Order: sequence, then C-alpha cells, then structure tokens
Amino acid sequence: MARWEADASGRLREAALELYVSRGFEQTTVAEIAARAGLTARTFFRHFADKREVLFAGSAELQARLVDALVAAPEAASPMQAVGAALDAAAALLGQNHQRSRQRQSVINSNPELRERELIKMASLSTALADGLRRRGVAEPDASLAAEAGIVVFRVAFERWISEPDGPDLARTMRDALDRLKAVTG
Amino acid sequence: MARWEADASGRLREAALELYVSRGFEQTTVAEIAARAGLTARTFFRHFADKREVLFAGSAELQARLVDALVAAPEAASPMQAVGAALDAAAALLGQNHQRSRQRQSVINSNPELRERELIKMASLSTALADGLRRRGVAEPDASLAAEAGIVVFRVAFERWISEPDGPDLARTMRDALDRLKAVTG
Repeated sequence: MARWEADASGRLREAALELYVSRGFEQTTVAEIAARAGLTARTFFRHFADKREVLFAGSAELQARLVDALVAAPEAASPMQAVGAALDAAAALLGQNHQRSRQRQSVINSNPELRERELIKMASLSTALADGLRRRGVAEPDASLAAEAGIVVFRVAFERWISEPDGPDLARTMRDALDRLKAVTG
Repeated sequence: MARWEADASGRLREAALELYVSRGFEQTTVAEIAARAGLTARTFFRHFADKREVLFAGSAELQARLVDALVAAPEAASPMQAVGAALDAAAALLGQNHQRSRQRQSVINSNPELRERELIKMASLSTALADGLRRRGVAEPDASLAAEAGIVVFRVAFERWISEPDGPDLARTMRDALDRLKAVTG
C-alpha cells in the first residue's frame, strides 16, 4: 500500500471515530465520514467493507502481534508465561492511545451489533492463542484454558484501563489482572 | 403456563432440533417444525420469536440455576468455590442429555449467526455470575475475573464433554477443567 493510501485509511478511521462519538454510530453515514476526512466514499470502500469495519480495522494486526509474541516466547516459558508475553505485546500496541481507546469502546458499548462484533473478535483472538499454544506443544485442554484465561485478563484489564480517566499503564493493569486471576483461581 | 402448553414447547424444541440436524438450520422453516410437532405455526410463535430462539429457549433457566447456586453457596466459600457451585448446577441441568447437547452444538457450529448468539449467551452468563459475586461482597476485578474464569471452564469442559461419544460425567469434566485452569494459571 502506498504511503498516501495508508494515510487515507488513518484519516478515515479518525474521522469515523469523531463522528461516531459526536453524532452516534447509527446516525453517521459513510459519505459524512469520507467528507470529514477530505476523501470520497469510493476511497472509503477501498479500505473498509462498511462503517462497522472501520472500528475493527486494527483487529488483524492485534491478533498477529499477540500470536507472534506468544510463539516467540522462550521455549522454557510455561503456557501462561507465553500468554503473558502476548498480553505485553497487546499492551504495547493498544496502550499508546488511551483517549482513542476510550472513545472506541464507548461507541461499541452503545450498539448491540458492535458489541456482538467485539465478542467475535475476542473469540477469534482466543482461538488464535490456543492454536499458537498447541504449536508450542501444549496439550488440550490446557491450551484452550490458558488462551481463554489470557483473553479474560485482557478484557477485564482493558475495561479497567479505559474506565480510569488519567490513563494508567496498560501493561501494568494487565499484569495486575493476571495476578488477581491467579489469586482467585488458586 | 398450562401443562399442554409446556408440552407444546418441548415438542417444538424437539422437532426443531431433529429437522436442523437432518436438513440443516437454514433449510428448515417454522411451518415444517410446527407440522412435525403436530402443531401450527401460530402455536410456534406463541412460544418462540423465531426459529433461532428455539435453540436458546433454555438459556434463561440455565442462567437462573447458575446464579441461584452461586448465591446459595456457603458464606465462607471463596469466589471460585461459589463459581464451582454454579458449575455443578449447570452440569446437573445439562448433563442429563448428552445426545441432545451434541446435536444442538453441531447445529450451532454450522451457522455463524447461531455462533454469535451463543457467544452473547455466554457473555450474559458471565455478567450474571459477576453480579452475583458482587452481591456476595466480592470486589472488582476479582468478581469479573472469577465469573469469566468460570465461564471459560464451562465452555472448555462442555466442548470436551460433547466431543466424546460415550458421554462421560459432565460435572467431573467441569471439575477437571477447573483443576487444569488452576494448574495453568498457578
């Protein structure tokens, strides 16, 4: 993708989020998003299938980062340590922009269809982590349990992180949640 | 609900599952389900909003049983022990009919819309368990983490249970999965 095209995608994502926050997801049209980004609807549809997918454009990259970090963890790492490495990678990717993460989540929470799409994204992340663990030689049910537990930590920590206005450190919030999970299950 | 009406609901659920398995969910109409049950489409719609909801008619009861068991657990029980009591209640309810559970899951797995609906059901169960734990005085994030961990155990154990043709004991499968979760997170 050319540099200008990548920039178009970023501008469209930013314009969409601004409009979803200020007017609401349902009330915003693709034409309005494109206009706000100084682009055409035709360009919008070269990047995104529909106005819902703008909010999930980062999902594939997030999943790839998580799986890469999991697979790259030291051979001696336990399943949960490998999952912890994946969570660190997620925090590094998502922890940069507290304000945008808060806004995106508020839009998603406001719409049942978006909430469903988010659930599917999380289920897909969990499946990908379990696959990665099995490639590391982890047997079932441990692979699925460790992967799902990792996604639980991810979701609970992420929710806490965006609920706090001053934006604490996401990586630390995730490690704290992992420690609490160990404490409650232990 | 009169006795005959309750029976109508059960007959419709059974007829629907038989048709979904033999012909496929998409290919089955409400009229066909009603005819197989010896009832009318009008009766069908007195019991279920659509042909999808027939598969989820037990969700409310499942959730109520889980929450009741969680709330009724001894005061001294840890959050995870209370969740364990809820899982025992789920196993007692679902563990009776291995063949029907297998069939229902195969229908759900065959259809993306049904898989989404199942994810929403699981998210709702988790929210209800977390609410119950907070009512027991469990603080956040422990309440959410223990509830989510319980649903992870539920899902992984249930999947294992239906994947085995001879139908082992669901309660034991759940307790084994809970032990494995403790081991992998510990």
